Amino acid sequence: MTTRRTPTGAAVLQPDVTHAITEAVIDELAEVGFGRLSMEAVAKRAGVGKSALYRRWPSKDEMIGAVIAEFSVARAVDPDTGSLRGDIRATLEALCEWITHPRFSRIFPGLIAEARRNPAMAEFARETIGEPRRAINRAVFTRAIERGEIPADTDLELALDMGAGIVYWRLIVRGVPAEEGYVDRVTDAVVRALKCS
Amino acid sequence: MTTRRTPTGAAVLQPDVTHAITEAVIDELAEVGFGRLSMEAVAKRAGVGKSALYRRWPSKDEMIGAVIAEFSVARAVDPDTGSLRGDIRATLEALCEWITHPRFSRIFPGLIAEARRNPAMAEFARETIGEPRRAINRAVFTRAIERGEIPADTDLELALDMGAGIVYWRLIVRGVPAEEGYVDRVTDAVVRALKCS
Repeated sequence: MTTRRTPTGAAVLQPDVTHAITEAVIDELAEVGFGRLSMEAVAKRAGVGKSALYRRWPSKDEMIGAVIAEFSVARAVDPDTGSLRGDIRATLEALCEWITHPRFSRIFPGLIAEARRNPAMAEFARETIGEPRRAINRAVFTRAIERGEIPADTDLELALDMGAGIVYWRLIVRGVPAEEGYVDRVTDAVVRALKCS
Repeated sequence: MTTRRTPTGAAVLQPDVTHAITEAVIDELAEVGFGRLSMEAVAKRAGVGKSALYRRWPSKDEMIGAVIAEFSVARAVDPDTGSLRGDIRATLEALCEWITHPRFSRIFPGLIAEARRNPAMAEFARETIGEPRRAINRAVFTRAIERGEIPADTDLELALDMGAGIVYWRLIVRGVPAEEGYVDRVTDAVVRALKCS
């Protein structure tokens, strides 16, 4: 019989504490933004000591990055509905929920603004948010190619940008909420762009 | 013979001073961002007194708003090349120059982030940047409808979002520069989305 042991030197991190801290980071970012977030405020909001934060992440930037990345990648879906249209629609629904999330919709545009000034932040966002999310969404198009729904030489990088870009521009850059049937209309436009060649 | 007269009570504003101030506002915004811009720094950079700023705009926010709006609307084009494809391509070229402008590409994402927190800023941006630019670009699609290139019931709001959203997501949100032929590929995708129905 093997005994379950904690790896030597690693602290046991309680998942409910991690969850409380994660929520506090999202709350604080939504409220005060990147520039003004402090470890003290996060710890206070989570009801823990600052040491609980530093046991999990070595610095404020790494804490913020890890929390935003986890929040974002967890919201990417690979629906596999059996059709390109169904897959794109489900992907876009999930994307809309992500970018219009009450707290995150105040965080993400600030991250983009920060990334324009800070190449390390841009690189980090690309590696921990953009690429993992795209890896998940890419399956939608590789399956459509396998089914013969779209050409084998489809520009996948452009395909991945289409729906996301259109809804981000509308909902976040322009700030105009979606009306009934909006996601269906975007889905149809993306499918047409991919299928008609 | 009529005499050219200054309207009663209005100061004569020298265009070259206005230009110097406008450039200074863009420089300062790119360098320090919205939150930290000061009238003193703009005046110093433009080589004028603060009174020169207040003669033109009643407040800092109105100065920033007016400068960004003028910069942005001046960069919207209505090319009228004779075809939908030619028009979309020229429109997207102009859009790319606007959003990737060395100084403005550091300003616009900050404006979007600000607008998410400040509804008055969002409304102002919509009225003075979004709507005037869309009014200019809309002609591309109304001409294509008149020529019979796209259906009369084309969703113009969605049509206006397509190219802009795709390139903004790629060049600014993801921060991946365009490679050779990129604008052509986006143009083709938007034309397909609009023409195949």
